Amino acid sequence: MIIVLKRGTTEDQVQEISERLDQEGFKIHLSQGVEKIIMGAVGDRSRLKALDLEALPWVERVVPILAPYKLVSREFQQEDTIIQVGEHQIGGKEIHFMAGPCSVESREQILETAHAVKKAGATFLRGGAFKPRTSPYAFQGLGKEGLELLAEAREASGLKIITEVVDVRDVELVAEYTDILQIGARNMQNFFLLKEVAKSSKPVMLKRGPSATLEEWMMAAEYIMDGGNYQVIFCERGIRTFENYTRNTLDLSMVPALKSLSHLPVIVDPSHGTGRWDLVSSMTKAAIAAGADGILVEVHPQPEKALSDGKQSLTFENFASMMEEIRVLASALGRRVKGA
Amino acid sequence: MIIVLKRGTTEDQVQEISERLDQEGFKIHLSQGVEKIIMGAVGDRSRLKALDLEALPWVERVVPILAPYKLVSREFQQEDTIIQVGEHQIGGKEIHFMAGPCSVESREQILETAHAVKKAGATFLRGGAFKPRTSPYAFQGLGKEGLELLAEAREASGLKIITEVVDVRDVELVAEYTDILQIGARNMQNFFLLKEVAKSSKPVMLKRGPSATLEEWMMAAEYIMDGGNYQVIFCERGIRTFENYTRNTLDLSMVPALKSLSHLPVIVDPSHGTGRWDLVSSMTKAAIAAGADGILVEVHPQPEKALSDGKQSLTFENFASMMEEIRVLASALGRRVKGA
Amino acid sequence: MIIVLKRGTTEDQVQEISERLDQEGFKIHLSQGVEKIIMGAVGDRSRLKALDLEALPWVERVVPILAPYKLVSREFQQEDTIIQVGEHQIGGKEIHFMAGPCSVESREQILETAHAVKKAGATFLRGGAFKPRTSPYAFQGLGKEGLELLAEAREASGLKIITEVVDVRDVELVAEYTDILQIGARNMQNFFLLKEVAKSSKPVMLKRGPSATLEEWMMAAEYIMDGGNYQVIFCERGIRTFENYTRNTLDLSMVPALKSLSHLPVIVDPSHGTGRWDLVSSMTKAAIAAGADGILVEVHPQPEKALSDGKQSLTFENFASMMEEIRVLASALGRRVKGA
Amino acid sequence: MIIVLKRGTTEDQVQEISERLDQEGFKIHLSQGVEKIIMGAVGDRSRLKALDLEALPWVERVVPILAPYKLVSREFQQEDTIIQVGEHQIGGKEIHFMAGPCSVESREQILETAHAVKKAGATFLRGGAFKPRTSPYAFQGLGKEGLELLAEAREASGLKIITEVVDVRDVELVAEYTDILQIGARNMQNFFLLKEVAKSSKPVMLKRGPSATLEEWMMAAEYIMDGGNYQVIFCERGIRTFENYTRNTLDLSMVPALKSLSHLPVIVDPSHGTGRWDLVSSMTKAAIAAGADGILVEVHPQPEKALSDGKQSLTFENFASMMEEIRVLASALGRRVKGA
Repeated sequence: MIIVLKRGTTEDQVQEISERLDQEGFKIHLSQGVEKIIMGAVGDRSRLKALDLEALPWVERVVPILAPYKLVSREFQQEDTIIQVGEHQIGGKEIHFMAGPCSVESREQILETAHAVKKAGATFLRGGAFKPRTSPYAFQGLGKEGLELLAEAREASGLKIITEVVDVRDVELVAEYTDILQIGARNMQNFFLLKEVAKSSKPVMLKRGPSATLEEWMMAAEYIMDGGNYQVIFCERGIRTFENYTRNTLDLSMVPALKSLSHLPVIVDPSHGTGRWDLVSSMTKAAIAAGADGILVEVHPQPEKALSDGKQSLTFENFASMMEEIRVLASALGRRVKGA
Repeated sequence: MIIVLKRGTTEDQVQEISERLDQEGFKIHLSQGVEKIIMGAVGDRSRLKALDLEALPWVERVVPILAPYKLVSREFQQEDTIIQVGEHQIGGKEIHFMAGPCSVESREQILETAHAVKKAGATFLRGGAFKPRTSPYAFQGLGKEGLELLAEAREASGLKIITEVVDVRDVELVAEYTDILQIGARNMQNFFLLKEVAKSSKPVMLKRGPSATLEEWMMAAEYIMDGGNYQVIFCERGIRTFENYTRNTLDLSMVPALKSLSHLPVIVDPSHGTGRWDLVSSMTKAAIAAGADGILVEVHPQPEKALSDGKQSLTFENFASMMEEIRVLASALGRRVKGA
Repeated sequence: MIIVLKRGTTEDQVQEISERLDQEGFKIHLSQGVEKIIMGAVGDRSRLKALDLEALPWVERVVPILAPYKLVSREFQQEDTIIQVGEHQIGGKEIHFMAGPCSVESREQILETAHAVKKAGATFLRGGAFKPRTSPYAFQGLGKEGLELLAEAREASGLKIITEVVDVRDVELVAEYTDILQIGARNMQNFFLLKEVAKSSKPVMLKRGPSATLEEWMMAAEYIMDGGNYQVIFCERGIRTFENYTRNTLDLSMVPALKSLSHLPVIVDPSHGTGRWDLVSSMTKAAIAAGADGILVEVHPQPEKALSDGKQSLTFENFASMMEEIRVLASALGRRVKGA
Repeated sequence: MIIVLKRGTTEDQVQEISERLDQEGFKIHLSQGVEKIIMGAVGDRSRLKALDLEALPWVERVVPILAPYKLVSREFQQEDTIIQVGEHQIGGKEIHFMAGPCSVESREQILETAHAVKKAGATFLRGGAFKPRTSPYAFQGLGKEGLELLAEAREASGLKIITEVVDVRDVELVAEYTDILQIGARNMQNFFLLKEVAKSSKPVMLKRGPSATLEEWMMAAEYIMDGGNYQVIFCERGIRTFENYTRNTLDLSMVPALKSLSHLPVIVDPSHGTGRWDLVSSMTKAAIAAGADGILVEVHPQPEKALSDGKQSLTFENFASMMEEIRVLASALGRRVKGA
């Protein structure tokens, strides 16, 4: 860590910092410039944080040098993490499509969708049983009944299941039913929920918060790994910007960035990422070309009747025809769509 | 609500929408322009949402006309809500200062701070017992012990207490100790937590999420009111933007905007809003001049030794001298700093 | 256009608006809801703008229905615009690579680069002669000498040239040398410069401003078309957001969005879009998969010695190996890299 | 400047950087940490920039320590710059109101406005003669006739004049008429325009670009000072964020930040900063309380008939009643509204 001191800092003040750093076990290097004094401190970053040196009036800036995350980093683990879910491997050569409605609405809807997306090449069925909605007056999900319907659809179709957990008190219940636990964007920094899923034996897909930086996102994954669950999957789903033609701004640069900084798999959600079904197919291709390990996508039998997010859902026909194109693309990139 | 149809929409397609709207009890007005057909629909907005007309391929856009919130709106209640906490009134002529450390760290620290801020004119003591931290390796708060120390400081100083609740399972516990429950910025859309505090008899201060729009923020307050707790206080604490000289961008326009759209009180947090103690005093004055009902501000006996957020904390001296200036300012604005 | 009136608007006030709209030739439809009165007005949008009805105290909101642009829209021209530059066609099946250094620095540098990128499959040589730099103390470009070196490199390599014009007084000069005029991101709303390039016979590539919405960007293109130059190419180069791991956030959703709303070609600049050379190759693939008609990319013989933006430049080797991969990808997408 | 090297950097690679820095006259300090090697380099920042060390594959990051601006900094000049315009002083104890319409529309409009704002306490008349408009179909200003009308209004009222210059070719013309040259937000990084106004003897008010950081804004001012014109005034007018209830997000923290980092005066524009006339009065008070040296505000005889931006303009009555309140506020802050 680099500590930049203000002009006019006295020797006593430098000495005070030195002693404090020394107590915490830091090695110190001092650079006396023409205009500023710069101190380099090498040691345990988390202890330096606690000193909060920037609160000292003669400290201009503290610049961290080492990344604050450890377990999620490529430096901690060189080889890619591959997450095994039944016969599927997420994070390797296979590309996985996790398709289905935003919310589980009825038995018929979820079974029909499961069969349709399975046929087109999906390997996972997605669908929300518990829905965190912006308005208290909007549909909040079927709850436990939704989980049971998902499980029935798994039996019937052979697909695996991914669904969101939103309440710390529900983690065990949801984990009983699902194959992958999903942490939604708004809960990315709900640290109590992160600690709870960290105790589960099920893999966790961690969506990026709408205003989360790459570093904060990786730190949220670090919470889960630090809590004992090493099966974490990132999911880019767009960030909030001034552009409002799209619901969010899908930040595909995060795919190669995460592949470089971390060993964990990366999924992309072009449905929330754009909020417009007519952009989903192009952005799915772009995500795969950028190196994503899979796609989370909304598919609904009748998007115009969906109880949530119909505007961004594909029909069965759209999904199937997109999958045709993806197969060719994946193969040109040396990868394979698992279910197709 | 206005429904704009794409060029080339057929009469049958218009008919289909009309019937569907009719079923849901909407009154419809049709405008046939040269280029586009426009439908006006008047009825219950929440039911229109469910129809998700934008998923219909011939619908270009649906423009909501009525605000989605009700209970929080100035139309629902004309006069200002005034929240009574002991002898204090938040939302009227009085201006309240809620001062204290980011985290409760020790008995000595919190008692010393309580006496100092009380003397300078604060009416509430703030301090976190449960800290949601970006890093799993950072100090996470003293927990229940922190609550007990706050209660002790209340006894000793006569200040009221405000502290954050972060876990749905802790709402009852925290409510036992605190005078106001604080919902932190990262939990603004933790809807399960909102529903839980809605059942409490204690007032709730709802911080704005770092990427929350005004409408989303008001909808979060609507959750709490809809759940039965009408004592809600907004707290502006800055939004996330590209500007990184400040930790957040303090959006003071929200103060007059909320005063116009809602009847609920508004507090401003210049400490998180700027992340720099040297800007706190100016932004406190600006917040008061903009019409805020109070200020949430970090004060620490030794900011440079704070276990969290020292960089943005005022010393006792800084706080006291700021309060001198505020008193004069408040009086010029026809208001009164309660504790001073 | 929809005009929403506030609760309590009187009949006289409605009448006043009606008369004013009538004078400007608008057809009016009135919807009397339970809570609000809504007026629909069909006519010439630009004249409604002039009325600025939102300044009337009893008008709550004015919602535009028609897009403000005409000439750039897909509704104005159904088929794709194809821009012919010598034997090259931009906007059709061909994909074009416009490669070269950020700035022209020397004869040797630009000639060497021209040969290298030509060999690897580029069709255009890019390079700045006039550099708008954030700091007055940074290298500002070689000026006219730079243009001459670009022309020499064109002769020597057979590549076409694209270079930026930054000053209204230089448009004629730059147009004499270049094959495509580039408008930089910071000048996207320099309307006098737009009007000047509108008079040129050379095609114009219009970069998106770092905080420009899709609509503002299309309006800037409208300026150029309205001024008489129909050969406009969009270039997405990232927007400014809170995420600072990348220099900008490359917004690839704009590619399919523009393809849907407009008939003009779309190029992507992954070098400025990410600011990191190690992300350029992945984002180039993603851009092509999203449907881009070409790529603007920084390539430098010795990136670490570049006088500007070396951090985001590819070496010759990196560029050549990327082009190998792109060829396969393009063909899987039914397109062809022109120069390869 | 701090140079952080990647793990595994060899001694030869360190040597290569050292030699290069040495050639450019930098003093170097080397810190060998457990995980990373860190180099400190002290010298002329602009030359280091040219080396672009981040393009070297073994360099992880380069962290600048010194600010890139000089002339605008408080370190360059300790005491506040006070700009004398006739009998007025901007940047001292006086607070100045620069009021008037967005555009000069007619002789009657501008004269009437001049008299009204003068009477209420303004010292400057604002009004655009050349209007950069997002749409080519919108009103573009009266041009030279507008300048003449402004000059006539100055004669008639005794107010000073501030108006925008948008084209490099018009700087001399506009400077002949105006007392202060205004650089609009979209031109903040139009470096050729900055260089042109730098040659003028008239003071320049530099509006912040909608996506400009504090540092970029200060660098734009540095261009003007470096070009020879030391009379620069900053004008905060809001930045672009995701929040769209307001037209921009007025970033008042910039007022104390600029006062701390720079010696130049700071003006605030709450009209563009909010885009809503009903928020202007509150945000004007907030700006003054934050320490602004003046306010640029839109006032129009009939806002609902304004040819541009009526929605954000005050009526004469609103302006006059706001000024009453401001007078009391200014005096409580130890300042004085000059014209009142």
